[in-house]
Amino acid sequence: MDLTISRLGNARIVSPLKKASDLAGRPYRFTPDDMRVVYDASVRPGEKKGPESEMSFEKAGARELIYFDPSKLKAGIVTCGGLCPGINNVIRSLVMVLHYNYGVKNIFGFRYGYEGLVAEAGHPAVDLSPEVVDGIHHDGGSFLGSSRGEQDPAVIVDTLERMGISLFFTIGGDGTLRGAQRIYDEIMNRGLKIAVICVPKTIDNDILLVERTFGFETAFSIAQQVIRAAHTEAVGYPNGIGLVRLMGRNSGYIAATAAVAEADVNCVLIPEVPFSMDGERGLISWLLKRLQRRSHAVIVVAEGAGQEVLGGGDRGKDASGNVKLGDIGLFLKKAIAEGLDKAGVKHNLKYIDPSYIIRSAPANPNDSMFCSNLAQNAIHAGVSGRTGMVVGLWHNMFTHVPIREAVSKTKVIDPDGDLWRTVLQSTGQPSRMA
Amino acid sequence: MDLTISRLGNARIVSPLKKASDLAGRPYRFTPDDMRVVYDASVRPGEKKGPESEMSFEKAGARELIYFDPSKLKAGIVTCGGLCPGINNVIRSLVMVLHYNYGVKNIFGFRYGYEGLVAEAGHPAVDLSPEVVDGIHHDGGSFLGSSRGEQDPAVIVDTLERMGISLFFTIGGDGTLRGAQRIYDEIMNRGLKIAVICVPKTIDNDILLVERTFGFETAFSIAQQVIRAAHTEAVGYPNGIGLVRLMGRNSGYIAATAAVAEADVNCVLIPEVPFSMDGERGLISWLLKRLQRRSHAVIVVAEGAGQEVLGGGDRGKDASGNVKLGDIGLFLKKAIAEGLDKAGVKHNLKYIDPSYIIRSAPANPNDSMFCSNLAQNAIHAGVSGRTGMVVGLWHNMFTHVPIREAVSKTKVIDPDGDLWRTVLQSTGQPSRMA
Amino acid sequence: MDLTISRLGNARIVSPLKKASDLAGRPYRFTPDDMRVVYDASVRPGEKKGPESEMSFEKAGARELIYFDPSKLKAGIVTCGGLCPGINNVIRSLVMVLHYNYGVKNIFGFRYGYEGLVAEAGHPAVDLSPEVVDGIHHDGGSFLGSSRGEQDPAVIVDTLERMGISLFFTIGGDGTLRGAQRIYDEIMNRGLKIAVICVPKTIDNDILLVERTFGFETAFSIAQQVIRAAHTEAVGYPNGIGLVRLMGRNSGYIAATAAVAEADVNCVLIPEVPFSMDGERGLISWLLKRLQRRSHAVIVVAEGAGQEVLGGGDRGKDASGNVKLGDIGLFLKKAIAEGLDKAGVKHNLKYIDPSYIIRSAPANPNDSMFCSNLAQNAIHAGVSGRTGMVVGLWHNMFTHVPIREAVSKTKVIDPDGDLWRTVLQSTGQPSRMA
Amino acid sequence: MDLTISRLGNARIVSPLKKASDLAGRPYRFTPDDMRVVYDASVRPGEKKGPESEMSFEKAGARELIYFDPSKLKAGIVTCGGLCPGINNVIRSLVMVLHYNYGVKNIFGFRYGYEGLVAEAGHPAVDLSPEVVDGIHHDGGSFLGSSRGEQDPAVIVDTLERMGISLFFTIGGDGTLRGAQRIYDEIMNRGLKIAVICVPKTIDNDILLVERTFGFETAFSIAQQVIRAAHTEAVGYPNGIGLVRLMGRNSGYIAATAAVAEADVNCVLIPEVPFSMDGERGLISWLLKRLQRRSHAVIVVAEGAGQEVLGGGDRGKDASGNVKLGDIGLFLKKAIAEGLDKAGVKHNLKYIDPSYIIRSAPANPNDSMFCSNLAQNAIHAGVSGRTGMVVGLWHNMFTHVPIREAVSKTKVIDPDGDLWRTVLQSTGQPSRMA
Repeated sequence: MDLTISRLGNARIVSPLKKASDLAGRPYRFTPDDMRVVYDASVRPGEKKGPESEMSFEKAGARELIYFDPSKLKAGIVTCGGLCPGINNVIRSLVMVLHYNYGVKNIFGFRYGYEGLVAEAGHPAVDLSPEVVDGIHHDGGSFLGSSRGEQDPAVIVDTLERMGISLFFTIGGDGTLRGAQRIYDEIMNRGLKIAVICVPKTIDNDILLVERTFGFETAFSIAQQVIRAAHTEAVGYPNGIGLVRLMGRNSGYIAATAAVAEADVNCVLIPEVPFSMDGERGLISWLLKRLQRRSHAVIVVAEGAGQEVLGGGDRGKDASGNVKLGDIGLFLKKAIAEGLDKAGVKHNLKYIDPSYIIRSAPANPNDSMFCSNLAQNAIHAGVSGRTGMVVGLWHNMFTHVPIREAVSKTKVIDPDGDLWRTVLQSTGQPSRMA
Repeated sequence: MDLTISRLGNARIVSPLKKASDLAGRPYRFTPDDMRVVYDASVRPGEKKGPESEMSFEKAGARELIYFDPSKLKAGIVTCGGLCPGINNVIRSLVMVLHYNYGVKNIFGFRYGYEGLVAEAGHPAVDLSPEVVDGIHHDGGSFLGSSRGEQDPAVIVDTLERMGISLFFTIGGDGTLRGAQRIYDEIMNRGLKIAVICVPKTIDNDILLVERTFGFETAFSIAQQVIRAAHTEAVGYPNGIGLVRLMGRNSGYIAATAAVAEADVNCVLIPEVPFSMDGERGLISWLLKRLQRRSHAVIVVAEGAGQEVLGGGDRGKDASGNVKLGDIGLFLKKAIAEGLDKAGVKHNLKYIDPSYIIRSAPANPNDSMFCSNLAQNAIHAGVSGRTGMVVGLWHNMFTHVPIREAVSKTKVIDPDGDLWRTVLQSTGQPSRMA
Repeated sequence: MDLTISRLGNARIVSPLKKASDLAGRPYRFTPDDMRVVYDASVRPGEKKGPESEMSFEKAGARELIYFDPSKLKAGIVTCGGLCPGINNVIRSLVMVLHYNYGVKNIFGFRYGYEGLVAEAGHPAVDLSPEVVDGIHHDGGSFLGSSRGEQDPAVIVDTLERMGISLFFTIGGDGTLRGAQRIYDEIMNRGLKIAVICVPKTIDNDILLVERTFGFETAFSIAQQVIRAAHTEAVGYPNGIGLVRLMGRNSGYIAATAAVAEADVNCVLIPEVPFSMDGERGLISWLLKRLQRRSHAVIVVAEGAGQEVLGGGDRGKDASGNVKLGDIGLFLKKAIAEGLDKAGVKHNLKYIDPSYIIRSAPANPNDSMFCSNLAQNAIHAGVSGRTGMVVGLWHNMFTHVPIREAVSKTKVIDPDGDLWRTVLQSTGQPSRMA
Repeated sequence: MDLTISRLGNARIVSPLKKASDLAGRPYRFTPDDMRVVYDASVRPGEKKGPESEMSFEKAGARELIYFDPSKLKAGIVTCGGLCPGINNVIRSLVMVLHYNYGVKNIFGFRYGYEGLVAEAGHPAVDLSPEVVDGIHHDGGSFLGSSRGEQDPAVIVDTLERMGISLFFTIGGDGTLRGAQRIYDEIMNRGLKIAVICVPKTIDNDILLVERTFGFETAFSIAQQVIRAAHTEAVGYPNGIGLVRLMGRNSGYIAATAAVAEADVNCVLIPEVPFSMDGERGLISWLLKRLQRRSHAVIVVAEGAGQEVLGGGDRGKDASGNVKLGDIGLFLKKAIAEGLDKAGVKHNLKYIDPSYIIRSAPANPNDSMFCSNLAQNAIHAGVSGRTGMVVGLWHNMFTHVPIREAVSKTKVIDPDGDLWRTVLQSTGQPSRMA
């Protein structure tokens, strides 16, 4: 795995942060350009380690020498894909820090995702200034709007060139990052001096090499409340079943974490751990036993779970290039009712899908802080001439990660790891349900 | 309309409230037995009024003389039908006031609705004391559990007789009230001295002759937040549409009130106001114009709205005796998408159904207070020997209403009244969409 | 008591609401000009009533004929006194309904209370339009700012005249209403055609002849949560005491209502019910017994309570003309500690004063609706030529009340009424603590 | 610094976790006994590092071989000091994991802190089982109660011996940890086989060698809302000043983090950065300029800030052994008013002290998860025979830290580090105010 970060050229300009902090009598502690964060921070005496243990990330942070002259720099911001708590915090912080700390006065916001960089879509860019973005962090959603779907990288780079933008921030998930990589490739092919810096946005927390993504904590926090509602419904009726479908296309982090946090969940189903409906060890059989013993059950399912039981073959891909999933929530709602009816067990199933309520919420305070720090480090990286990278977190330190590596695979829950083990302990569900 | 309240006999026992308050040096102001609340409190000089203006309700409140000897009284409580914020507050207050203020020491809770009074269902009754119910008002749902469905009134009255219960409180909606009326009839037929007092529970706020029902305020308060989420989604995408389905089988109070409270809704659809999908004045046509003008829209629909556009014929009745409704939410989700596709308008529709999240929430503080007052007045009525009645609110005063009249019709929004006019003003939607 | 409302002249102009609703095919149900709401809606057969029972309020609502020509009308809005949840909702609704429903295009907001109408204070008025006020209802506080203190009515009327304002809305409490009365008197003396309409703002809910004021519900709802914190602290330590000071200068509505809603309070102290610290029936003696029995206690005190035990003589008046109160919260904190120390009882007292957190909160959904309705009725009244009045609520219907009568006395809790009795039942505190 | 963890003896018993997971077909990945976490995970090529870089912590986690036989083990839990969000989550998880995963059936809860281990205080210990603690995590505070103050370690160890407790968990802050160290020393002196394991509880997040403590996130999240209230008050009046006092005796983490998260704060005062009131660069002078420019200001002060400006000499120590602080909040409230009055500047200062509201809140979902993980790792450490240690977090991994080192100093904000720099950027306040 190559964790080297591309650079547009040598950084020779003294950062405006230096002057300001020197003046204030409190010199800035810049991050040395060659400072790195080890991939593996746990050690055993005398241990033989594989090549992974030698890996390290470039450490994020302000640099003393930067590449762009901030006074002449024009920056652009785009937000793509699904909504996620904290998008507006990132936008706001990007504008605030660019404006106040680096003195960048020309900042453009592109509307409705990559569409906003394609003239024919008819969404003119908006000027972003501290006045415009002040207060937007109190609202959920994206102040700039979003959209799914690919746009021609050549057209996008044409737009960036025409507008004179040298620093381009994309806030988006997997599809967006792949798009950003194509834009970066196009820029490199043309030999342009435009930096592409990504703030990874995935409510599912599934970006490889990145410990945590913004919005995830807010998401599982709201999910926990919804699970509580499901539990209230379940205990409120004879053989009550609360079934909650949560986000998680490839990874069940939200489902698993919310379930443990609430502590009243009896079964969590995630994409990483296959299960079957029928048979002695299947879901229906487990549920029958559970109802007999306790007469209620709460089940949480991640949207990407159980694709193997859904059937229906290949569903193609959506505009973001994601594999289209069958709806496991509605499937389970129906299949559980049928299974229990077949077994002659009267029951009360209540199905809740809170996805849009969760993703459109404003960031909670901890995510707000995190978004602010991500934005700062994205700017530090961009003005230093770095490009083709995402801002990551590793061992609780901010890092630089090549887009290429970040999108190479999806981060998933390890079924033998601590999180899943905690889920098993908390729910008491069997470790294999197939 | 006959608003006379049945009584089991003459009240001749001095209320324990009298002694206690006299001792404390602050004599109780009992409600005179013949005190009433006028039906129509607005007057015009010289106005000729119809017979309705002559109507009045018996006023609720503690009576100086009561019918039952509290020291020997056994009371029972049952909760039926769908969950609703505040059920636990009512249970708790019933127990607290019976125990501490009237000295009633035998209070039984029946589990899972009327099923709990039918031995063969196998849900033994639970003893209720202050220790048991303390703190339950902080949780949503029903501490006793609930269920839908009719049970044989004869069997229920057998149970009440066998257990020696003379004061029977039912907390439930339309179906429950009709069940209570049948239980009351059975008791009367047998000549028993058992009082049946109902605390009306309908999150939809649709009980006739009752100004407000508990849980309604909590419900539309949460609904407002959900609408905000829908608005965030709608403005976040080009031609974004937020579609929220809310409770309201026969009456659109929750939808209408939440829409006005949030002030970002563009169209409210309720059972009381028919609409059509197609045609120049239909929903699709309106939506196309709205999207052209503002490129987003928020639509709120009550579950009972638009049954006329759904088709599908008679769906029969559910266990509570309610007409089964077609799912207008999923219908609109599909029909809007098809309508816009047909018109060649790309769009982003997000559908949210928060029903279970709303109904399982704990009561907000104002509903908590209200539940507490309802419970007190239910007890005052019951110990005084009244029966076959629900506790109501009229002109902001608590009243007694015969079950028979309360269930004779459903309370609905007047399409020419103030609430609906406020909706039209707030949304700007056309007053006729058909 | 004279409940006649002054009018500037005959209403001869057809309301624009009529044309719009006729066009829409849903004719407006205007409130007849002589429609009234009875003061006393409870009746006893054959009862002899005093003169009060004959009293009635003018009913609020849109009139078919209005006095002002909306197309030429200029309106002004001012907010004064302490913050209160819902001020922004009222401002927003005033602007929205004036603009969209009546077609009033010139609306001015005066900044920082009556100061904003006095040129020398240097706060220029702001233009208010739907764009400006859209979204302000999501924030607490006052969008226009507020201040305390009297200003010369002559100067204020000069400003109104100079700006050509004919419809002047004041949002404020007791002091503001008295100021509005003086402005009204000045206008009458000069024979001007300027309507003065007040939306009463008192978080304490203490306006006479008005059933409920906006912000009160939001206030006691937040207060309830704070009481819960106090309870958590109290039970967390041996002999833990949670002491919460709430708003309520002359009336203990917030303290009483929040205490009942939370149901974990052991003693409520309000201005209406005097108490003493010492003696066998005093607070300290009660507290010692309570701690011995349960080893914790939660006490809620309204800010105006116990002025008689505070001592310290006359404290003068504040800028709003309110009598300056001694700080009963800090007094009790000290006096309780001393009393218990003297009795040799180790304890842990935690004192919480959440006033500013409560009053600066945004309105909850129910208060939002209420504010919206208050604003509508204020406008209906104003355009009809009514003046010198506040918008009230009585028997759950909106009414017109002369300012003069509304400020003649303060509404207080009746120590023999239902609310206080419920407090005594809920807390178990002695009905006399003196 | 010696990071070696004491052990009671060799671990020779196979963990019950092994058998259960083997049976379930998903073998447990135990943490090797010699696994460590590096102190410094950032590297520079060719860098010369000091001795600190060589330091490492023992890694927490379940061990394959344990010291105690769980079937015979008796455990005890005590909570001491101030309330903090998450205490109940820790208690609940300790009980759940001990009971269900290790099969420990005898778990005792000591009431009201170390007092509960001293017979003469009269607080008998309570039996803790899953039934007893289920649901307590939804409430704030401490289910066991707490107290401040030292108790004789000899008496405490007598109690542990008499009750046969071999695994003793303390949940508490600085004072508690020092107490735990004395208990540990006493146990060692007596040669007993009792493990002492601490879960560090400091809402201030100020434990050395521990990246994060539970409750801190919940605390700054609520603090953020309070700051918002202060901002609403500040902008609501001419020259409005919102002054918020937050927790933080030695370290300003809550104040700094909440201020950055809310982004509307103009000045943060913390213990780590001295300031003066007067002089050209003092607080008053800065405030006068701020008010002139923007006519409002929000100031957040940590309780331990500005002790140098308070005067008043040595105040002694409280029961927990903490230096008694002067009340900087009330001091500033008075001093600012005087300073501005002296400068002839009319203003409106609103002072908010939300401490008890914050510390008594239930843990937010992220803190809930964290508490659960802390408890698990505390148990893993204890059953393995480790003692005299706290459970820590470093580089986002759970660790073991000797109590002795954890209490050797307080963790404070580095005035030249990233957090404080972010504060300066966010507030715009001068980096030196003295």
